[in-house]
Amino acid sequence: MTTTLQQLNSALPAEALRLLDGLYEHSPWIAEQALGQRPFASLAALKHAMVTVLANATVDAQLALIRAHPELAGKAMESQSLTAESTNEQQKAGLTNCTSEELAHIQQLNAQYIAKFGFPFILAVRGPRGTGLSKREIIATVERRLGNPVDFERAECLRNIHRIAEIRLNDKFGFTPAVGNEVWDWHEDLARHSDPEFAERGELTVTYLTDAHRACAADLVARMKECGFDEVSIDAVGNVVGVYEASPHPSPLPQAGEGVKALLTGSHFDTVRNGGKYDGRLGIFVPMACVKQLHAAGKRLPFAVEVVGFAEEEGQRYKATFLGSGALTGHFNPAWLDQQDADGVTMRAAMQHAGLPATLEAIGTLKRDPSKYLGFVEVHIEQGPVLNEMDLPLGVVTSINASVRYQCEAIGMASHAGTTPMNRRRDAASAVAELALYAEQRASADGDSVATIGMLQVPGGSINVVPGRCRFSLDLRAPGNAQRDALERDVLAQLRAICERRGIGLTLEETMRAAAAPSEPAWQARWEKAVNALGVPLHCMPSGAGHDAMKLHEVMPQAMLFVRGLNSGISHNPLESTTSDDIDLCVNAFSHLLDQLASEHKN
Amino acid sequence: MTTTLQQLNSALPAEALRLLDGLYEHSPWIAEQALGQRPFASLAALKHAMVTVLANATVDAQLALIRAHPELAGKAMESQSLTAESTNEQQKAGLTNCTSEELAHIQQLNAQYIAKFGFPFILAVRGPRGTGLSKREIIATVERRLGNPVDFERAECLRNIHRIAEIRLNDKFGFTPAVGNEVWDWHEDLARHSDPEFAERGELTVTYLTDAHRACAADLVARMKECGFDEVSIDAVGNVVGVYEASPHPSPLPQAGEGVKALLTGSHFDTVRNGGKYDGRLGIFVPMACVKQLHAAGKRLPFAVEVVGFAEEEGQRYKATFLGSGALTGHFNPAWLDQQDADGVTMRAAMQHAGLPATLEAIGTLKRDPSKYLGFVEVHIEQGPVLNEMDLPLGVVTSINASVRYQCEAIGMASHAGTTPMNRRRDAASAVAELALYAEQRASADGDSVATIGMLQVPGGSINVVPGRCRFSLDLRAPGNAQRDALERDVLAQLRAICERRGIGLTLEETMRAAAAPSEPAWQARWEKAVNALGVPLHCMPSGAGHDAMKLHEVMPQAMLFVRGLNSGISHNPLESTTSDDIDLCVNAFSHLLDQLASEHKN
Repeated sequence: MTTTLQQLNSALPAEALRLLDGLYEHSPWIAEQALGQRPFASLAALKHAMVTVLANATVDAQLALIRAHPELAGKAMESQSLTAESTNEQQKAGLTNCTSEELAHIQQLNAQYIAKFGFPFILAVRGPRGTGLSKREIIATVERRLGNPVDFERAECLRNIHRIAEIRLNDKFGFTPAVGNEVWDWHEDLARHSDPEFAERGELTVTYLTDAHRACAADLVARMKECGFDEVSIDAVGNVVGVYEASPHPSPLPQAGEGVKALLTGSHFDTVRNGGKYDGRLGIFVPMACVKQLHAAGKRLPFAVEVVGFAEEEGQRYKATFLGSGALTGHFNPAWLDQQDADGVTMRAAMQHAGLPATLEAIGTLKRDPSKYLGFVEVHIEQGPVLNEMDLPLGVVTSINASVRYQCEAIGMASHAGTTPMNRRRDAASAVAELALYAEQRASADGDSVATIGMLQVPGGSINVVPGRCRFSLDLRAPGNAQRDALERDVLAQLRAICERRGIGLTLEETMRAAAAPSEPAWQARWEKAVNALGVPLHCMPSGAGHDAMKLHEVMPQAMLFVRGLNSGISHNPLESTTSDDIDLCVNAFSHLLDQLASEHKN
Repeated sequence: MTTTLQQLNSALPAEALRLLDGLYEHSPWIAEQALGQRPFASLAALKHAMVTVLANATVDAQLALIRAHPELAGKAMESQSLTAESTNEQQKAGLTNCTSEELAHIQQLNAQYIAKFGFPFILAVRGPRGTGLSKREIIATVERRLGNPVDFERAECLRNIHRIAEIRLNDKFGFTPAVGNEVWDWHEDLARHSDPEFAERGELTVTYLTDAHRACAADLVARMKECGFDEVSIDAVGNVVGVYEASPHPSPLPQAGEGVKALLTGSHFDTVRNGGKYDGRLGIFVPMACVKQLHAAGKRLPFAVEVVGFAEEEGQRYKATFLGSGALTGHFNPAWLDQQDADGVTMRAAMQHAGLPATLEAIGTLKRDPSKYLGFVEVHIEQGPVLNEMDLPLGVVTSINASVRYQCEAIGMASHAGTTPMNRRRDAASAVAELALYAEQRASADGDSVATIGMLQVPGGSINVVPGRCRFSLDLRAPGNAQRDALERDVLAQLRAICERRGIGLTLEETMRAAAAPSEPAWQARWEKAVNALGVPLHCMPSGAGHDAMKLHEVMPQAMLFVRGLNSGISHNPLESTTSDDIDLCVNAFSHLLDQLASEHKN
């Protein structure tokens, strides 16, 4: 007996509260307050309303909710003893059949946890796919989260409580994120291929044109064909390209006489070393899922959909970042062919081994004619903490940030820490400290700018010597080139002023500079409409990391959609994760964008 | 035909100016302005008056003076061609007989120097002893000073100009710092002993009870005997002890019936690895020079003078810092005897090898009865930049600073530098940067406190990762325990507040804590009187480094006198240096202190 959203929206208050009973442990006030926001446009809207109530609650109320949960060790014992009569939820949890050693370890971890945080460890044991975490995963999560700061861990518990509530709500409403689950499974399936030395350790590493990489390409080809793409191929640089043709008689396009245009989309399937499963791949699978739905419904759009799985974005085996998307914009560097990997294998040889032509002529033909495309869109996991912290499944990208990097050294005078008075020092590290605080403040004032001193060292420093040298890096990013330039100008001017005032010498080496790729307003607006249509609050944000869309930006309009990452949005790391519920919403958003485009081209 | 101070003080202005002609290159205005301060109590007072005029001049005037000097390469060529008719000054310079290669190298260095600083390299080539630097020393000095910041190097040139003027003034007035020269030579002579592996490289290293150390002790014994000490011996820990007995019929002492008291003085003769020649040894030789003068004059004081060359202060071969002075206060740690050096030689074995009894009984007898002593005074090279920068030869110590040290780690959350907004970071390095600036400001506000973060590192930092960890050291010192405690309290409170506000974890490990040794006011006043009597301005200052006086402080009143160090007061380094003129003044100050004590005990 499942509930419908319509029932909930129209029920009397007491009845509505009963319908939401038990979502949050002994805390009906959350549902009660959320119900004030009826009617809900979607389950996602209801979930967000509840999340917001809790986010706005006092810390005491939040702690009370957390403390209302049983301890993990207790749950494990309960699972053991209650297996026969377990509920749907318990069946899917992973702490059944613990050995006594495992149980003792869990109890010990739990005691450590309580001692540090003062509240019980909470984990949505049914996990991001809803089918349950393994014992190993659960224990590893406790061990990892023991290292968190207290306030951060409190928020992490709340996020897990929301996830538990989300799954319970799905159960109540008989909702299964079926497409999200399927796309989730595609990621798992593709992740079975990994370069051998990493595969041995259970790590995911797929670098350009290795056997694992080619196996991924073959899988993508097969999966695209299954989805109903009309033409699927591997191109001269190893990109997997699937085209879902437009309807045979499309409505006239804005510029008549140019034939049928295509929407270009996709992302990369190579990974960093010991990377995550979603970085890049999500942006291939989400449009594939949309095409699968279109094909299953026998539906064509007034434009073609061209999905590209880019073969190379991470620059791991060869220093050839964005090779895959760059081939489509005509930016293949001929020198790359002679570049050797760590084993001395040239890219040319690797291409030949993969059965690719390995000629500049063949690669040159990959360059796309922008006039044949509507534009480029890319879905990507956020790789940052924002959506996770804001409890939002999706975010619309305003710009891929411009960036500039420097390696620097401040040179003062080493001197005796005891005998050199404060006003006679030339402390190189203090100068850098002053810069660090200025850069932090200056970037914060800009809103979307970021400034980072990621490397910082007093070489050969001693406890009793005033630092004579301090080496540091500087990474500055902003949504636009002008904003980045202003940030850079201010930070460097301040750095020079600090050094001048303190009598400190300075060396600066620029090591990287990349232009911003602001989203095309019309395309960003389409993503915004799509997110609004799902009933979840709209959040627009810059992308601090680079993406294939940066390359396509050089030749056609582009805009990106971000999907929330769990674990503070950690990326380039096996902990990278997202839920099948979020993926489901993302597929819906992409479908909505396709519908919008179709409507636009019918008019 | 030499000038006397009396002539100068009584001459008409034009005549006085003529008497001081040529001290500063083409810049008679310096002498002219200084003459406004007549009469001068001493040559030292005249020198300081001139130094002060230049220090107060505009930077333009200072630069004009510097630029009035010939270039070093020109000087070298001039020396070559003018050897036959060279002046007294040129004869003593070291750039004669350069090979053409050497000349080319000097010219190249000189071009580099001019290009960097915009003014010619200036060096008082007659050096700190007045007898001339070697070619090798001169070239090494240019090479070293090329690395200085511009404003620092300008000041270094001015200091060299003062030194040239000092030597010229000495020549004009027919003054030779004879005792200073002698004591200078004693340092050179003692420095011929060095532990073998360092001696090979021309480095000075004398660690506890090595052959070089025992040779030093033997030299000191011989030198003390030459000076006229009545009893000279090597005690059970290797200290060299010389006693110059009191007059046979001393005036009654403040506490009658206790017999004749002694003034205790001295410092250490061991060195750090590749150390300087003056650290410690100056404090043995200066009172020895005074005793030599007393003995030569057949003069006895109403108290004995006991000079101790402490065998161990630096804690290099064994971790037994202040072993020598500690033996006199009964603080010999019995566990030290079993401590092994890097070669596995126990201290007991080293003592036995040196012919010492190596028993706790024998060592125990070294403990002094404070009631038999007037107090302890110690002369030491400053080991800091203050006197050198202030152009003052001597400084009176107010306190040996209290200190405390910590090793710390700030623990934030590593995250992506591009995707983590400024307001969502837990940047461990930014927290430490904030602390560094606070500590700098807080210590500065105290006047004589110092705070240093000498070790600073983001372990495994990457240019594109927000620092998750930052390791750093903290060294806090202040002239008094209460002031140190307040500084420590404020700095740690601020550190905790910063970490709390930023959500950063923190580990702190206290690694050292030493109490302050404030100078006994009556003894400090004696040093002040002595310095005043020399006609040079009085400057009182804390000692940021530890000294043997810290140990004696535990049992008797003490006060120290500092002598200016050249090269920014660098110490624990072969560049440690001072002039024979400054040593001469120091011997005079010590004699004055002895005279004061003698007068006090006659009353």
